[in-house]
Amino acid sequence: MIEKAFQDYYEDHSSHCYGCGRLNAHGLRIKSFWDGEETVCRFTPRPFHTAMPGYVYGGLIASVIDCHSTGTAAAAAYRAEGRKMGTRPELRYVTASLHVDYLKPTPIDREMTLRGSVVKIKNRKVVVAVELKSKGELCARGKVVAVRVPEHWTPG
Amino acid sequence: MIEKAFQDYYEDHSSHCYGCGRLNAHGLRIKSFWDGEETVCRFTPRPFHTAMPGYVYGGLIASVIDCHSTGTAAAAAYRAEGRKMGTRPELRYVTASLHVDYLKPTPIDREMTLRGSVVKIKNRKVVVAVELKSKGELCARGKVVAVRVPEHWTPG
Repeated sequence: MIEKAFQDYYEDHSSHCYGCGRLNAHGLRIKSFWDGEETVCRFTPRPFHTAMPGYVYGGLIASVIDCHSTGTAAAAAYRAEGRKMGTRPELRYVTASLHVDYLKPTPIDREMTLRGSVVKIKNRKVVVAVELKSKGELCARGKVVAVRVPEHWTPG
Repeated sequence: MIEKAFQDYYEDHSSHCYGCGRLNAHGLRIKSFWDGEETVCRFTPRPFHTAMPGYVYGGLIASVIDCHSTGTAAAAAYRAEGRKMGTRPELRYVTASLHVDYLKPTPIDREMTLRGSVVKIKNRKVVVAVELKSKGELCARGKVVAVRVPEHWTPG
């Protein structure tokens, strides 16, 4: 059985996001999975996602951290409730704040690996920390405060 | 005389950035200008830059804040040295850290206006604060710590 990504459980109305929506034909379509207590997302930038030649654009790094974190928040919320992703009511999260520290330039010609961990989960808020590595080297650190989308936003 | 954007003064090797490079055919090509002591960037998202339907993707907002801030940092550094942009040696900045607070959903069907102000400029570091408004409403706040690119990165 092939494991489904968090984002593949999102309902259709939640699947148009440029960063992670499976229904956004122009988007990044990132995919996140559990790996024990952590979450993981592997993403290979396109050649035009460049900053200075040879390195990944910081906005792309922020984008992947953002969507990996809201995905992690949703997955963690289901897990905390002892529910399977994809069951209703849908638990979806949006970003309240995003912080990225760029520690060193990230090479553009290879896959980046992002690992997320849940720092805090309380009421409607999940705080996620992310480490982005390229070939084992830590290149960026992210922190996202994600909040649950109000029920009236999610018609599902 | 038509005013040139900060990004149009970047030398060719600095102009491939996905967010602001005039030579990146796939990129956002944002443009930033002085407006008194502030800097301004107006950007209209494409329909696929969506988060939840109807609203702008947070990663796109982070991207525009990022490049408007590094552009503001460069322009401020030239101004602090009493030099015109485009003169050598080139002063270019990259992002050391990026913080965005998403205050309310940003409508996707209209222009966003970003205003930047220099919070601090010291040695090789410039801190820039950004307010992002849509139709006059404050939707996001950003803060970027930008650091000057080492000379050996800029062959110009």
